[in-house]
Amino acid sequence: QIAGTGAGIVTSSNVTLFGVVDVAAAWGGGSIADRTRLVSGANSSSRVGFRGVEDLGAHLGAGFWLEAGVNADDGTGATSNTNNQPVSGSGSGGLTFNRRSTVSLMGDWGELRLGRDIVASWRNKDQTDPFSTNGVGTTLPHAITIAGVTAQRASNMIGYFLPQALLPGVFGEAQYYAGENQSGSDGNGWQARLGYANKTWGLAAGYGLTKYAQTATLGDTQVWNVGAHWDFGVARLTAGYFHDTVKQVAERTGTGYIVGAVAPIGAGQLKLSYSTYKVDDLGDPTARKLALGYVYNLSQRTALYATYAHIDNRGPSDAALNGALTAPGSSSNGVDLGLKHSF
Amino acid sequence: QIAGTGAGIVTSSNVTLFGVVDVAAAWGGGSIADRTRLVSGANSSSRVGFRGVEDLGAHLGAGFWLEAGVNADDGTGATSNTNNQPVSGSGSGGLTFNRRSTVSLMGDWGELRLGRDIVASWRNKDQTDPFSTNGVGTTLPHAITIAGVTAQRASNMIGYFLPQALLPGVFGEAQYYAGENQSGSDGNGWQARLGYANKTWGLAAGYGLTKYAQTATLGDTQVWNVGAHWDFGVARLTAGYFHDTVKQVAERTGTGYIVGAVAPIGAGQLKLSYSTYKVDDLGDPTARKLALGYVYNLSQRTALYATYAHIDNRGPSDAALNGALTAPGSSSNGVDLGLKHSF
Amino acid sequence: QIAGTGAGIVTSSNVTLFGVVDVAAAWGGGSIADRTRLVSGANSSSRVGFRGVEDLGAHLGAGFWLEAGVNADDGTGATSNTNNQPVSGSGSGGLTFNRRSTVSLMGDWGELRLGRDIVASWRNKDQTDPFSTNGVGTTLPHAITIAGVTAQRASNMIGYFLPQALLPGVFGEAQYYAGENQSGSDGNGWQARLGYANKTWGLAAGYGLTKYAQTATLGDTQVWNVGAHWDFGVARLTAGYFHDTVKQVAERTGTGYIVGAVAPIGAGQLKLSYSTYKVDDLGDPTARKLALGYVYNLSQRTALYATYAHIDNRGPSDAALNGALTAPGSSSNGVDLGLKHSF
Repeated sequence: QIAGTGAGIVTSSNVTLFGVVDVAAAWGGGSIADRTRLVSGANSSSRVGFRGVEDLGAHLGAGFWLEAGVNADDGTGATSNTNNQPVSGSGSGGLTFNRRSTVSLMGDWGELRLGRDIVASWRNKDQTDPFSTNGVGTTLPHAITIAGVTAQRASNMIGYFLPQALLPGVFGEAQYYAGENQSGSDGNGWQARLGYANKTWGLAAGYGLTKYAQTATLGDTQVWNVGAHWDFGVARLTAGYFHDTVKQVAERTGTGYIVGAVAPIGAGQLKLSYSTYKVDDLGDPTARKLALGYVYNLSQRTALYATYAHIDNRGPSDAALNGALTAPGSSSNGVDLGLKHSF
Repeated sequence: QIAGTGAGIVTSSNVTLFGVVDVAAAWGGGSIADRTRLVSGANSSSRVGFRGVEDLGAHLGAGFWLEAGVNADDGTGATSNTNNQPVSGSGSGGLTFNRRSTVSLMGDWGELRLGRDIVASWRNKDQTDPFSTNGVGTTLPHAITIAGVTAQRASNMIGYFLPQALLPGVFGEAQYYAGENQSGSDGNGWQARLGYANKTWGLAAGYGLTKYAQTATLGDTQVWNVGAHWDFGVARLTAGYFHDTVKQVAERTGTGYIVGAVAPIGAGQLKLSYSTYKVDDLGDPTARKLALGYVYNLSQRTALYATYAHIDNRGPSDAALNGALTAPGSSSNGVDLGLKHSF
Repeated sequence: QIAGTGAGIVTSSNVTLFGVVDVAAAWGGGSIADRTRLVSGANSSSRVGFRGVEDLGAHLGAGFWLEAGVNADDGTGATSNTNNQPVSGSGSGGLTFNRRSTVSLMGDWGELRLGRDIVASWRNKDQTDPFSTNGVGTTLPHAITIAGVTAQRASNMIGYFLPQALLPGVFGEAQYYAGENQSGSDGNGWQARLGYANKTWGLAAGYGLTKYAQTATLGDTQVWNVGAHWDFGVARLTAGYFHDTVKQVAERTGTGYIVGAVAPIGAGQLKLSYSTYKVDDLGDPTARKLALGYVYNLSQRTALYATYAHIDNRGPSDAALNGALTAPGSSSNGVDLGLKHSF
């Protein structure tokens, strides 16, 4: 579902402790090696967080959001990144508020948000993926993107969200973030997204640019994408196109699309997606993926789920599922069977 | 006290923030060097956690449990282990949910629990030790076991607990866990425990096997043990026998036993334990330990405590207390004086 | 404001989740390089914590306090230090309770506090600094002290606070902390502070000594200081003198003073400080700093703030602001523009 994410005016002051614990048995098969593991967050990323909003009066509000990713299968924390550069993560397995660490001021004029957060261009990947970029079903434009460390989140960010009441159905955001090097602009970047949604359909476009000194394997990284959804009642259909460019010495471009469907069936949802991702490297490595899943809701907070996915590799592509290894041009299969509980 | 740990059907939905902060002045004496420190968790492991249960109706429940060990003397977190292998811990001093990170589904048929948790065979060590494996009084089959990193907890685990209502007083659990290597079964294992307890006495047996490729210092690690308790009113007596085998190139076996007593005296408890651990290495290193402690409860949540312990080493054994160093065959003494507060 | 920090008798039992998320756009200018960053805690250190007190009856109370520093601009945690020695911090970016990790017993006789905490001598730096040692305005005796890792906090500490009711207005504390080495006394130390405050003015003196084996760059580190405040209604004036000595092979002494003012103006506060710090190294490096700030309170919990600071370096001093680089003897300027929200 294509939608905006800016908060409106807050009306009460509180602090909320929230989270998700989601663990699945995961199997991956490939032409070289299969693998069986317990994994975390195959339906919804395991996390624990603190958030709250305060009504300041005069149509103003303040809020904070601290959200830490948890590897629930082993209790470790997800790593963050302090400088938006492709270095090893910060945290070494200790908890960090890698998912979101922000303070906000909100008003009739929109929302000002400071800290680490999701980048604008990623929301189209999330919102067109029936699996919300989680688990073996994750669509390829997220799973194997060449867009690097700021493809999903960035640190040291100043973000602005349009107010929900600006124009009916229109939403948008713009972000600037800094790599914070002593010199140079490595890790600096900006992103924006603009969209429209009504009760039946939505459409949004996103753009992002992160700057890096040019080397053989790194350079300015530019992404743009469009996403759309239509809700037919019996099913919600989604579609997205994604275009990533890394301006390293030999410039690389990766492109892909997603088509997806989520249909309420019984106490749950049937999910179906088809996605592709192709990089213009030698041999044009291309992967295509089909994913099918069912989520059985035991309550609004708890669900059992099963997902099956298949990747078809062409050329030198060797994308594999759930930790399996597959040879270039070979296929890979994967299954998740899991339990998700949110609080 | 020998008891099961499976949860029954839940009847309400909530989230609980809980923890312990326990700090003690600790002295250790040995023939080579003495040592004085502040230590964490000498009565009860310092921790902070989030847990909750949800009633799903139809005799079903869901629950989560995220519990992080804290070194309360310096504020760092306890490390976790992602692959059940004897590598350096994960977390580097940042908080991890190393103590427990699980999601559960519960029903009349028992409990299914996924994530990182205590292994089944360890519960007999905990439940027969008057000091619950904390502090200078910790009994030797836990303190100096050769059973390695899965002696107490394991990651990537699927556990099943018998329902409490199966047979009156009968409890049991079985677990499978994975090391999650690309190839091989290093760190894979399974554990089980079966027991019976009534108001007066309890008895349980535990077994565990963790697989490792055989080297000069590592190999399949097998543990089995039995534990029992009798409650005489004036005191609760405990006893346990523990047998650990590491099938490295030159197979090693460690065996030990515990006898313990906990007696309510005044506003507190007197604790007494005697334990041994012997390894069949050259010279049959053997340690024997006597521990005596008193816990003075200021409330149900807060206690002052004092523990004295003495280790008698035989052969090449050089076990020492509270960070002291002692020569092979020499003795070691230790004292904890601490304050524990739980919330 | 000069004040004591010992807690009185507690009257209720509870657990409080608390914190601050404070992010600012920060610019620093120097003769070599300028720098623009997003920074955390420029008005009040970003943090998340758990604390609680319990009434034990009989004029006794217990309490705990676990407080983790957060780098809210990137979601990582602040590092702690396990042995009070100048090594790299512990935590590697994962959350640690580096700010405070303590358990307390309180009574008519005062408070006994065990764990990691602020050292006594630092409180005069904090309480005489209009900017509370946060952000670009931080006074120099804190910002560029030579007093090392125990200048602000120490681990493995036993602290005692005088009761508030001992003598009207008199407060004091004493602390002992241990480096916990196997041998030697590296990182061991003690601190004390004694003061008096009434409704109009306050005065306190602090002392600290941390022991280290003498090398070319490290040795016993001694600090002493005095702080005072006067509240004139229209403004609260503060003053402090600070003296640090490191008994390395060539002993170094650093001295500085602070004069400050905080004036309530409109819905906020105007802050002004002048501070110096001089080290008796070759050439007598000396820095002088002027800082001016305004905090606009949107509520008791939320504020916008702006701070300007200027450093004037003399001799080989090259102190710079907000990550800028400046040549010895050159000046540096800095600005913070931020949003603070507490919960």
